[in-house]
Amino acid sequence: MITSPSNAAIKAIRSLKQRKERTARQVCFVEGIRLVGEAIQLGVTIEQLVVAPELLSSSFGHALVAQAASAGVPRLEVSGEVFVALSGKDGPQGLGAVVRQRWESPESLRLDDAPGWIALSSVADPGNLGTILRTADAVGASGVILLDESTDPYDPAAIRASMGALFAQRLVRTTFDAFAAWKRATGAYLLGTADSAGMDYQATTYPQPLVLLMGSERQGLPAEQQALCDLLVAIPMRGRSDSLNLAVASGVMLYELLRQRRG
Amino acid sequence: MITSPSNAAIKAIRSLKQRKERTARQVCFVEGIRLVGEAIQLGVTIEQLVVAPELLSSSFGHALVAQAASAGVPRLEVSGEVFVALSGKDGPQGLGAVVRQRWESPESLRLDDAPGWIALSSVADPGNLGTILRTADAVGASGVILLDESTDPYDPAAIRASMGALFAQRLVRTTFDAFAAWKRATGAYLLGTADSAGMDYQATTYPQPLVLLMGSERQGLPAEQQALCDLLVAIPMRGRSDSLNLAVASGVMLYELLRQRRG
Repeated sequence: MITSPSNAAIKAIRSLKQRKERTARQVCFVEGIRLVGEAIQLGVTIEQLVVAPELLSSSFGHALVAQAASAGVPRLEVSGEVFVALSGKDGPQGLGAVVRQRWESPESLRLDDAPGWIALSSVADPGNLGTILRTADAVGASGVILLDESTDPYDPAAIRASMGALFAQRLVRTTFDAFAAWKRATGAYLLGTADSAGMDYQATTYPQPLVLLMGSERQGLPAEQQALCDLLVAIPMRGRSDSLNLAVASGVMLYELLRQRRG
Repeated sequence: MITSPSNAAIKAIRSLKQRKERTARQVCFVEGIRLVGEAIQLGVTIEQLVVAPELLSSSFGHALVAQAASAGVPRLEVSGEVFVALSGKDGPQGLGAVVRQRWESPESLRLDDAPGWIALSSVADPGNLGTILRTADAVGASGVILLDESTDPYDPAAIRASMGALFAQRLVRTTFDAFAAWKRATGAYLLGTADSAGMDYQATTYPQPLVLLMGSERQGLPAEQQALCDLLVAIPMRGRSDSLNLAVASGVMLYELLRQRRG
């Protein structure tokens, strides 16, 4: 059992708080019984289970540990103190895992089922990204396309906000230029949102599946990206605000797509 | 000009990061040109303007400082270094303000215009609360009723997420029991959401104005609060998630109310 927070294996896990490390190693650290359980259930590759026996009291947690052991997953046993040092949570549950990131190649991108995909142009806030993943999962979207400088879905704050949807949704990272080439080649329908759009988001019926393109928190969709869209719509605002939070706007759009599918 | 971060006036402002201090003094610290501008424009009482001339470059910012000066608002001039110590932002703009909190008494609560009010039962995350204020403003809601242990809308994270809507929306804090008594006495229509509700949120037409009651992030609405509702509805989920982020769920409900008003 590891009892020192400065142990090399523990330092290697802590370093996963940095995006550079996560990207270089193509893994991330998830913690909590529910999240680790979701990762296992959804077939995510677990590189290492991290267990603090003195903190792990749930029987579901113990069952997960046994399941991972029988599948031959390497296990790191740590003291409660070491787990607290790894954890970003207030009441750590004593179970975490280093899991492999899953990315699909942009080439494999296809529009299969309604509503389709959501593409994010330079989303900056990991909490917003995680929340959008959660909503995308809730409406049955295929996954999230991260364009250009979008933040990392494997950021701890994104993982937390996604509530496990990160492992259920498909992820593609690409440049806007490559995405535009794909859109032109496949004829995929691209729906964008912009405050300045002339059309109300509920004034038309959308062809589904499609790609819903949402701009960044600060800038919205740049003109070049608006120009690629088959249609631009606006969500109405009745108060002083001239924009919604990105995750809320995405939620309103995704639930409008669901409403139209339900007829 | 104050050049020491340990100056007593500066310490007094920094202590406003703590809820206890904010509540005792009934003020909060807002920063950034846009937010300070909104506060002034919306008639919020500014107790003290905090200006760091070496950081303040915007002409709109300078105009705000001049406007506050002519209105007799006390001004604290600080060095850039001191302002950075006060600031929670990456690129501080050199303008902040200590502003008075505004609360309405629960007795003054009335249902005037559609859609009405949103009541939050023990919202825990200040970012969620700020985002809900922003959306409530966007759909033209009257304000937010904070029940029981709800977090503080004057928390820096809530202020930031509200993007100024905090100053445009009305705020009431009360207990669930007092709110229930008000609801029974006035006959206000109370619409609740619960994953387990039998009715779909789009299966009926709501009488507006109403009070939309949303549960906490972790627990949703407790049974006692569900029992007070005239109607409980569920937002459909098609994926693995069994719930939405609270601010997203609130946004979906508020935009459904707006959709019905628009006909």
